[in-house]
Amino acid sequence: MRSPIIGVMGPGETASPRTCEIAFLLGQQIAQQGWILLTGGRAAGVMDAASRGAKQAGGLTIGILPGTTEAGMSEAIDIPILTGMDSARNHINILTSTVIIACGMGAGTASEVALALKAQKPVILIQVNRTTAEFFRQLGGDRVIIVEQVDEAIDRIRQILS
Amino acid sequence: MRSPIIGVMGPGETASPRTCEIAFLLGQQIAQQGWILLTGGRAAGVMDAASRGAKQAGGLTIGILPGTTEAGMSEAIDIPILTGMDSARNHINILTSTVIIACGMGAGTASEVALALKAQKPVILIQVNRTTAEFFRQLGGDRVIIVEQVDEAIDRIRQILS
Amino acid sequence: MRSPIIGVMGPGETASPRTCEIAFLLGQQIAQQGWILLTGGRAAGVMDAASRGAKQAGGLTIGILPGTTEAGMSEAIDIPILTGMDSARNHINILTSTVIIACGMGAGTASEVALALKAQKPVILIQVNRTTAEFFRQLGGDRVIIVEQVDEAIDRIRQILS
Amino acid sequence: MRSPIIGVMGPGETASPRTCEIAFLLGQQIAQQGWILLTGGRAAGVMDAASRGAKQAGGLTIGILPGTTEAGMSEAIDIPILTGMDSARNHINILTSTVIIACGMGAGTASEVALALKAQKPVILIQVNRTTAEFFRQLGGDRVIIVEQVDEAIDRIRQILS
Repeated sequence: MRSPIIGVMGPGETASPRTCEIAFLLGQQIAQQGWILLTGGRAAGVMDAASRGAKQAGGLTIGILPGTTEAGMSEAIDIPILTGMDSARNHINILTSTVIIACGMGAGTASEVALALKAQKPVILIQVNRTTAEFFRQLGGDRVIIVEQVDEAIDRIRQILS
Repeated sequence: MRSPIIGVMGPGETASPRTCEIAFLLGQQIAQQGWILLTGGRAAGVMDAASRGAKQAGGLTIGILPGTTEAGMSEAIDIPILTGMDSARNHINILTSTVIIACGMGAGTASEVALALKAQKPVILIQVNRTTAEFFRQLGGDRVIIVEQVDEAIDRIRQILS
Repeated sequence: MRSPIIGVMGPGETASPRTCEIAFLLGQQIAQQGWILLTGGRAAGVMDAASRGAKQAGGLTIGILPGTTEAGMSEAIDIPILTGMDSARNHINILTSTVIIACGMGAGTASEVALALKAQKPVILIQVNRTTAEFFRQLGGDRVIIVEQVDEAIDRIRQILS
Repeated sequence: MRSPIIGVMGPGETASPRTCEIAFLLGQQIAQQGWILLTGGRAAGVMDAASRGAKQAGGLTIGILPGTTEAGMSEAIDIPILTGMDSARNHINILTSTVIIACGMGAGTASEVALALKAQKPVILIQVNRTTAEFFRQLGGDRVIIVEQVDEAIDRIRQILS
């Protein structure tokens, strides 16, 4: 049986240290569950931290890259998908993931959460403020799950996949 | 000299009558300024209303369509660009527009506003609630302009283009 | 009634002077028929020559650009569509055009002719050698039309559109 | 160290039994070398045969799918990348593969070989006729390698990767 692909989205260069720490733990626990991790693949912020977490736990990592080459790619990516499509690749991130976790928030991440809701996918938000949570709840209703802890995120994914 | 392209984004089937009315006026006034109107091109909601407004005022309308054919296209589109890319075409809407107006809000529209902020483009929001305004202000700061009236939107675009 | 969009594809920097001359005439005659010209939009080779021909004859020109900005765009483009998708934009060129003319040949042009045949679109080849003509005839059969003269290309398009 | 990704392209529904047999052997030997196999992912022709060959040999298979869901996917795909981009996904196939093998020929395959040459990637052709070989040699010169046997294809890839 094929492993589910879980997408972890989040800010790149502007991610806070705390957000990166959470992203690392998410990657680690996703790998421990036997799930495949998908990120935007760049060597920055949440993408990089989650991928390093997954690799440390022996997982498999996919990176959907915006460019035409591997320049700027995280070293923790096993499978680089080179799209050459700039931010239009965000839609591929969403379609390819069974569940999307947004860890922290930024303009790119917001586009991914919105595209996920458009595509009727479940989204888990972690490390977001009240306005962000409210905004996406208005857009997506029950498909938007807000959690505080990494463990809770993993539990909710397990429920969704079962 | 080439005419500026102004993108009007907004909900499709879920747009309220009031939001469609505003979209129609936006299209009309964009055409009256001699600007080209760009929308997502479908025969629904804000895309359709804005395009019909622009045509009534003798303007030129571009529709960036998600499908591979003209099925479901607004009759008010002069130039249909067929992308066959589903919602990944939202990124083309943004890159091609000099200024983006979001009229009303939905998941697709939210992805477009977020992609516009990611691409450092100015965004005007009209017909949105307080949570939406606050959320995008957090993401985009001064590049996000919130207006109440169509006239004000047109004034702000004129300033940006000058 | 909307004007048909005719795509003219061909080499960029590597186009011969003779091929560019033919492309200029194609653009001119396309505009004289009241059709809209679509090209890849760059300031090079066939794209540029065809667009300049169409402008000289008072036509409307669309450029489907590979980049995220107007850098490197032909000055003869009225409507620049910025895709940010590199050569993946070739598929949009094809889907958006009712008839495709390939003027000269190169790797990018070959991908466009092949995508056009895949999408069941009629293709006219001009300024190609015998091997090229034979290859695409094998792939596309009667949908591939080989002509020697610009007038003949225009006649064939008129038949297809009627 | 990351495994190289080798792309095997070829016709879908129109592939001959002999072409599918060769594709199966290619997939098998690619997996035996420890390389990752990439295809267009559909349950048809060369994509399916190569993926089944790779799975039989215990390899890892990536499928870059044209649709927004897994409908029509080969059962031998481990990692489905859902692009929702129709044939524009052909460009991702090419960018993501270090070496491209075209096994048999059709319109989609021709677009992939052409895009590969445009992106300066090495291409191996197997199971193609003389006109096809000549056409792509004209376009790509020495970057186009024509082989008769699966073993020879694998040898040439080994040389390219070394």
